[in-house]
Amino acid sequence: MSNAQNPASSLVSNDLVTRLQWRYATKKMDPSREVSDEKLERILEATRLAPTSSGLQPYEILVVTNKEIREKIKAIAWNQGQVTDCSKLLVFAAWDNYTTERINTMFDLVNDVRGFTNEGWENYRQMLLNTYPQRDAQVNFEHAARQAYIGLSVALVAAAYEEVDSTPMEGFDAAALDEILNLKARGLRSVALLPLGYRDASGDWLVNLPKVRRAREAFVTEVE
Amino acid sequence: MSNAQNPASSLVSNDLVTRLQWRYATKKMDPSREVSDEKLERILEATRLAPTSSGLQPYEILVVTNKEIREKIKAIAWNQGQVTDCSKLLVFAAWDNYTTERINTMFDLVNDVRGFTNEGWENYRQMLLNTYPQRDAQVNFEHAARQAYIGLSVALVAAAYEEVDSTPMEGFDAAALDEILNLKARGLRSVALLPLGYRDASGDWLVNLPKVRRAREAFVTEVE
Repeated sequence: MSNAQNPASSLVSNDLVTRLQWRYATKKMDPSREVSDEKLERILEATRLAPTSSGLQPYEILVVTNKEIREKIKAIAWNQGQVTDCSKLLVFAAWDNYTTERINTMFDLVNDVRGFTNEGWENYRQMLLNTYPQRDAQVNFEHAARQAYIGLSVALVAAAYEEVDSTPMEGFDAAALDEILNLKARGLRSVALLPLGYRDASGDWLVNLPKVRRAREAFVTEVE
Repeated sequence: MSNAQNPASSLVSNDLVTRLQWRYATKKMDPSREVSDEKLERILEATRLAPTSSGLQPYEILVVTNKEIREKIKAIAWNQGQVTDCSKLLVFAAWDNYTTERINTMFDLVNDVRGFTNEGWENYRQMLLNTYPQRDAQVNFEHAARQAYIGLSVALVAAAYEEVDSTPMEGFDAAALDEILNLKARGLRSVALLPLGYRDASGDWLVNLPKVRRAREAFVTEVE
């Protein structure tokens, strides 16, 4: 039973589950294959549509194609080959803090797009303004990082849906990556990498091994 | 332009993006409509297949249908009606810490399923055993919580794919919820709620408002 062949029961089989069975943390990518612009844009658009706490979208995505920069990133990411063999390297970078300006920018955008102001919404803005900026920056960053992981997750699901391989990665020196990409000056801290590309099955030790997950009964509890 | 009608450009339109445009943080659910077992199982299976750091799956999901318990949860969740009006209330609960036993259980499961041991994998196990259990429990919990958010995200995408409405929620008293569900004794801490159900459009103030996201250029940076 390989990652490409996991059978689905009749109860759970549908396109999305099948693609999630197909996906795996690709260990070897084929550097000669490019992810098309159409597929990349759909993956980014799905991610842009991902929900976040209070709609703040407290993270950004960098799409790194520059070869020299990717070599530098590889060097601070345990020399994992997907960083340079992939077609597009996505970097998820969370806000380092919640500031009054950042909160206001998002609330103002909502009012701009919807074309009106609403008292409940403005009260909610004040509640956040009275809470988030006063908190410890690390607490805010951890909260923002969780939201970035929602985006990371949507991106890897969307990639699988497009039959694009990906490898979610935490194994890198975040401070060094922030330096390479000059993220600190932008108030961002890198939290995850997601190389996008195509598996090189002949060179990938993981591709034919079964996907391992805890059984449903060790993962889900009914409270009835 | 309502949440049900956001048009997609020809570049990004596909089923998954369309469903993500359709989804929104449902504010009013119809308590008379049930999510079918088939749809629930596909949503849970998609979530079970979600990747996590080192494959540890450091979280669990509780599916709460019990009405009295949901009333108690509603009371510590700002009285948000979706908690009781939804069909199934998913609770995402992260491991409160990484322990030797938990790490070994997952690594042993991998060996059991794959039917062999591998030196690289065993070295990786030792590296985690030498690192995670010694770290501060809060650091480990925050890391586990991020993984739970990957699952939360897959669940809400899978729900949208099934045309099931959902509302990701952080607005609850986590310590009180842990008490209600007796999570502490299981080494778990609640991090997010995800009611699943069907929108009651006539009572939902948000359903016809446009979805607001930062423009692509304020969300994505190319490093070429």
